[in-house]
Amino acid sequence: SRFEYVKKFEQDDRCLLGCWIVVRIDGRSFHKFTSEHLFAKPNDLSALKLMDVAACSVMEEFRDIIFAYGQSDEYSFIFDRKMSLFNRRSSKILTNLVSLFTSSYTYNWRIHFPNTELKYPPAFDGRVVLYPNTIVLKDYLSWRQADCHINNLYNTAFWEIVKSGKSHVEAAARLKDTFSSGKNEILFSEFGINYNKIEPRYRKGSCLFWIDKMTEKSPEGPDTVGEFITGGACKKPRVCREITVSHEDIISEVFWSNHPQILGQDIVNS
Amino acid sequence: SRFEYVKKFEQDDRCLLGCWIVVRIDGRSFHKFTSEHLFAKPNDLSALKLMDVAACSVMEEFRDIIFAYGQSDEYSFIFDRKMSLFNRRSSKILTNLVSLFTSSYTYNWRIHFPNTELKYPPAFDGRVVLYPNTIVLKDYLSWRQADCHINNLYNTAFWEIVKSGKSHVEAAARLKDTFSSGKNEILFSEFGINYNKIEPRYRKGSCLFWIDKMTEKSPEGPDTVGEFITGGACKKPRVCREITVSHEDIISEVFWSNHPQILGQDIVNS
Amino acid sequence: SRFEYVKKFEQDDRCLLGCWIVVRIDGRSFHKFTSEHLFAKPNDLSALKLMDVAACSVMEEFRDIIFAYGQSDEYSFIFDRKMSLFNRRSSKILTNLVSLFTSSYTYNWRIHFPNTELKYPPAFDGRVVLYPNTIVLKDYLSWRQADCHINNLYNTAFWEIVKSGKSHVEAAARLKDTFSSGKNEILFSEFGINYNKIEPRYRKGSCLFWIDKMTEKSPEGPDTVGEFITGGACKKPRVCREITVSHEDIISEVFWSNHPQILGQDIVNS
Amino acid sequence: SRFEYVKKFEQDDRCLLGCWIVVRIDGRSFHKFTSEHLFAKPNDLSALKLMDVAACSVMEEFRDIIFAYGQSDEYSFIFDRKMSLFNRRSSKILTNLVSLFTSSYTYNWRIHFPNTELKYPPAFDGRVVLYPNTIVLKDYLSWRQADCHINNLYNTAFWEIVKSGKSHVEAAARLKDTFSSGKNEILFSEFGINYNKIEPRYRKGSCLFWIDKMTEKSPEGPDTVGEFITGGACKKPRVCREITVSHEDIISEVFWSNHPQILGQDIVNS
Ligand SMILES: Nc1nc2c(ncn2[C@H]2C[C@H](O)[C@@H](COP(=O)(O)OP(=O)(O)OP(=O)(O)O)O2)c(=O)[nH]1
Ligand SMILES: Nc1nc2c(ncn2[C@H]2C[C@H](O)[C@@H](COP(=O)(O)OP(=O)(O)OP(=O)(O)O)O2)c(=O)[nH]1
Ligand SMILES: Nc1nc2c(ncn2[C@H]2C[C@H](O)[C@@H](COP(=O)(O)OP(=O)(O)OP(=O)(O)O)O2)c(=O)[nH]1
Ligand SMILES: Nc1nc2c(ncn2[C@H]2C[C@H](O)[C@@H](COP(=O)(O)OP(=O)(O)OP(=O)(O)O)O2)c(=O)[nH]1
Ligand SMILES: O=P(O)(O)OP(=O)(O)OP(=O)(O)O
Ligand SMILES: O=P(O)(O)OP(=O)(O)OP(=O)(O)O
Ligand SMILES: O=P(O)(O)OP(=O)(O)OP(=O)(O)O
Ligand SMILES: O=P(O)(O)OP(=O)(O)OP(=O)(O)O
Ligand SMILES: [Mg+2]
Ligand SMILES: [Mg+2]
Ligand SMILES: [Mg+2]
Ligand SMILES: [Mg+2]
Ligand SMILES: [Mg+2]
Ligand SMILES: [Mg+2]
Ligand SMILES: [Mg+2]
Ligand SMILES: [Mg+2]
Ligand SMILES: [Mg+2]
Ligand SMILES: [Mg+2]
Ligand SMILES: [Mg+2]
Ligand SMILES: [Mg+2]
Repeated sequence: SRFEYVKKFEQDDRCLLGCWIVVRIDGRSFHKFTSEHLFAKPNDLSALKLMDVAACSVMEEFRDIIFAYGQSDEYSFIFDRKMSLFNRRSSKILTNLVSLFTSSYTYNWRIHFPNTELKYPPAFDGRVVLYPNTIVLKDYLSWRQADCHINNLYNTAFWEIVKSGKSHVEAAARLKDTFSSGKNEILFSEFGINYNKIEPRYRKGSCLFWIDKMTEKSPEGPDTVGEFITGGACKKPRVCREITVSHEDIISEVFWSNHPQILGQDIVNS
Repeated sequence: SRFEYVKKFEQDDRCLLGCWIVVRIDGRSFHKFTSEHLFAKPNDLSALKLMDVAACSVMEEFRDIIFAYGQSDEYSFIFDRKMSLFNRRSSKILTNLVSLFTSSYTYNWRIHFPNTELKYPPAFDGRVVLYPNTIVLKDYLSWRQADCHINNLYNTAFWEIVKSGKSHVEAAARLKDTFSSGKNEILFSEFGINYNKIEPRYRKGSCLFWIDKMTEKSPEGPDTVGEFITGGACKKPRVCREITVSHEDIISEVFWSNHPQILGQDIVNS
Repeated sequence: SRFEYVKKFEQDDRCLLGCWIVVRIDGRSFHKFTSEHLFAKPNDLSALKLMDVAACSVMEEFRDIIFAYGQSDEYSFIFDRKMSLFNRRSSKILTNLVSLFTSSYTYNWRIHFPNTELKYPPAFDGRVVLYPNTIVLKDYLSWRQADCHINNLYNTAFWEIVKSGKSHVEAAARLKDTFSSGKNEILFSEFGINYNKIEPRYRKGSCLFWIDKMTEKSPEGPDTVGEFITGGACKKPRVCREITVSHEDIISEVFWSNHPQILGQDIVNS
Repeated sequence: SRFEYVKKFEQDDRCLLGCWIVVRIDGRSFHKFTSEHLFAKPNDLSALKLMDVAACSVMEEFRDIIFAYGQSDEYSFIFDRKMSLFNRRSSKILTNLVSLFTSSYTYNWRIHFPNTELKYPPAFDGRVVLYPNTIVLKDYLSWRQADCHINNLYNTAFWEIVKSGKSHVEAAARLKDTFSSGKNEILFSEFGINYNKIEPRYRKGSCLFWIDKMTEKSPEGPDTVGEFITGGACKKPRVCREITVSHEDIISEVFWSNHPQILGQDIVNS
């Protein structure tokens, strides 16, 4: 039609080549959403698992995602730096991920919350960030995991103090000006809690990545081995890959040297 | 933490001031989705109404949207050109809209498809386009409505021919190289269908916009007057606004002069 | 060669269609440059004329420039909003203008400063700004002319006070906390200067735009009529256009209604 | 003034952190410029040296430039990837470089072309390109040097054939469909020219980079050691750095391992 010229107003938003593409998704106003849906405090296991499931849907669909990290109401997805999906168009990548994540969260709600009606549709914001090398990419992931640690340590101590009979104001006052060590000490001496023994999921968040799987038999039906959430759709017989979820420390280099395949070959001298 | 520097890699993506911000959302692979969920052909009334509901959720939440237009698996949202939501950050605007739309679509599915299980979570892509003046903005909307018309006329004729016993290949061949008039003629002479009498919703798509409403009583509960879908949340007593949905021609100037409040004051000489 | 893939790292930077493209150029460290080359204070006539000449070179070369405005060490160039030069690529437009402006300034230096050796090559920075409608475009130009006025009034008063025997510190103290009216008053009562009688060039800056010219004879050689700086290269006999330079008020609408051809047809209702 | 709001239309264009920033400058319509100013063919020594001088002006002024490479009518400047000049604003970096380069070229013209009047002011375009790692950065430089080689080999052969009495058309026909080896062979067997013995400047282009210099005496006046073009302005006594120009192969790794300080520490694992 004679109106087609308006399509030319669309602007090119392709991501710089050679960079790691990170998409971070975060729940919109989840302070209210978690409160309205009575999420357990400080951590709601069902809610966190539902986040992992939504993230797995995204990884299953967008196979160029090599790693995902989630905590609280957020998830970060890392694309291979050579990725060419959607011609690297930022908006296409971003909206497809955010939309599928949201949809899967809403779709799978009742499996994880069979007794809690979803009162209104939840939403997530999202952004694309580019990281030009592996050092800054790892620092990005460390940033999110450090955030998880800081918040969780605080929240764990806060709610223990509240459970012990104090008001929110008193709990906050008690924790003000304490360092990590102080909060650990309060938990241990006052509540008998060794913070390092708390669920890794709560302390470390969730790491999703692909591992190769050798199967004797042809891969039909969902193969669930150990902690594997999903068996994916194997094309080649006997060798396929599936997503594993773990709750490990990714700030330390140990994780990355244990899983050298995730970020792939070093670009020497880059 | 010492990792916080990575936040500086986020790039500013604010939309140019003074422009109309348009967000267009489109179903991802809805060819497959509509087929798997057995949507009626060429138009599924429930599906189209579900789209409208999802769009209303978005408008209710983001009150700076002054107009929305939907057809097929897509919806366009127009923000007031003075809008300052999210500081006009493109990604924030875009992802919040796409996410809420998707969520509402999934959430409201079973109301509109009580007998059809949702097989998998649907997803939508989205993009932001800026239009610097009202002429190009109207041409944008005309482009989408012309697209609706062209597709719907074709599809209506196609499926009538198929219903009459022809194969898909034969129907396509019959319509190849016909103009609008030819398709109208086939519908009328062969199937007794006056295309202009077909449901306006199918021919014109859906237009959502706000109209003021005077209420005698304090606005509690959902006020549904006439075709109004939603009563919104009125803050001031006695005067509030609600979304109306109509299926009018927006290519002609008549619509805009009948509703001068939608696009607001002309910028004289601009 | 096998290295050609690196060209793909170049990013698309085309200017949004339908917007006025403004390029503003500003002298780099001209505080130092004007001082080293002993520019007259507060205004150096030769220097300002040299700026106008450089701007004319740019307009002669890039014929889609419809208007230019200069003052102090800066010049703004306005492109027609339909302009398609360099496919509207921002960097190409910007660098070509800045480079030619700089080159012409350096090249023509000795004509305007026959007795002052150019000590080192001067440089200018530049930026592209998009304005979506004529109102904001005019406000942009008003902003620059208001800046000219404010600085020139201050500088005129400042240097008169200094000439009268005061120190720089004393002059600054005298002017601190005065309004326009106060500075006008000082100039008039203490120095007998009616500010409004000062050279329009100094008070208003320079406006360059095209005017049509009818010529009886074929346009060979430089036709200089009245204030016209340049006769350009006329292609069609008897009708050509040339740049005129004036020093008028462009904040008032009078200027624009006197020269309706500059910004062209209104986009009605835009 | 009330017009200041228009400044908010300027858009943020900061370069992604962590990337090498490359600015490439290229003569505008130098086909015409070189012809009008009767540049020697295929290479004009004065012209190439003038380019080097202009590039040195730029490096002296913008000390974060770690390397520059020039050939034909173009020059590329590489900034340290940690560079924070102008807050990494793309337009500011770009226009300052292009403008100073152009100005220096025009300013120094008559030193290098004492017998050729500059007919009109020359101009250069420019662009910013980001390279996220050292491999692609080196490939970028290799791309430019390979371009130099390909063009120079062709041009050298072409003009030898022309000098021998053939027309331009005949020379072009002779070279069509030849590879590098073929052109080398023609040069050697028909004109007795060993291409590898031709001036390195013509075959390899110019590489500018900083080298440290130890001086016994305090560094006053231009210290010109060996091939050094410029002594810069040393701040610390006894240790300063100056620009060296060389015409080496930068495609091979040898150059980079001989000068490890240029690109600096590897980012291990990046
Ligand atoms: N009770 C409970 N709350 C949680 C859990 N996970 C996240 N939340 C809550 C705590 C925070 O209020 C909120 C996440 O903080 P954000 O900084 O993302 O803020 P919020 O989503 O409210 O606003 P935003 O739209 O992201 O700016 O979600 C959980 O497992 N249990
Ligand atoms: N049966 C039926 N199909 C519909 C209806 N509305 C939309 N569709 C289908 C027709 C098209 O196959 C599809 C929309 O076309 P698109 O161009 O958006 O393609 P699709 O979504 O498959 O791919 P995309 O991911 O957008 O590139 O949705 C409907 O009411 N009934
Ligand atoms: N004496 C004299 N100085 C002038 C004249 N025109 C401009 N200037 C000087 C006054 C200011 O110091 C300077 C322009 O101010 P700017 O704000 O552009 O600052 P400057 O160029 O020093 O720094 P920049 O690199 O633009 O940030 O040029 C003139 O006609 N006579
Ligand atoms: N005779 C001669 N010509 C040269 C020399 N160096 C460069 N040139 C000419 C050869 C080419 O015609 C021109 C450079 O080619 P470009 O691809 O940059 O094209 P040109 O500058 O004409 O157009 P452009 O504005 O860059 O698209 O400059 C030289 O040393 N001697
Ligand atoms: O999706 P299409 O084919 O209708 O056309 P488009 O939306 O302009 O294409 P894309 O989704 O790739 O931007
Ligand atoms: O949302 P916050 O407050 O955690 O911080 P942010 O995500 O960096 O802020 P924004 O969502 O506004 O980008
Ligand atoms: O100028 P060319 O033809 O060498 O190629 P380019 O520089 O990539 O093209 P452009 O100057 O248009 O970006
Ligand atoms: O240069 P100034 O201080 O007049 O102000 P600006 O030009 O807006 O600042 P910048 O040159 O840093 O964009
Ligand atoms: Mg946030
Ligand atoms: Mg949140
Ligand atoms: Mg959060
Ligand atoms: Mg599409
Ligand atoms: Mg679709
Ligand atoms: Mg569609
Ligand atoms: Mg400035
Ligand atoms: Mg300046
Ligand atoms: Mg200035
Ligand atoms: Mg070019
Ligand atoms: Mg060139
Ligand atoms: Mg060139």
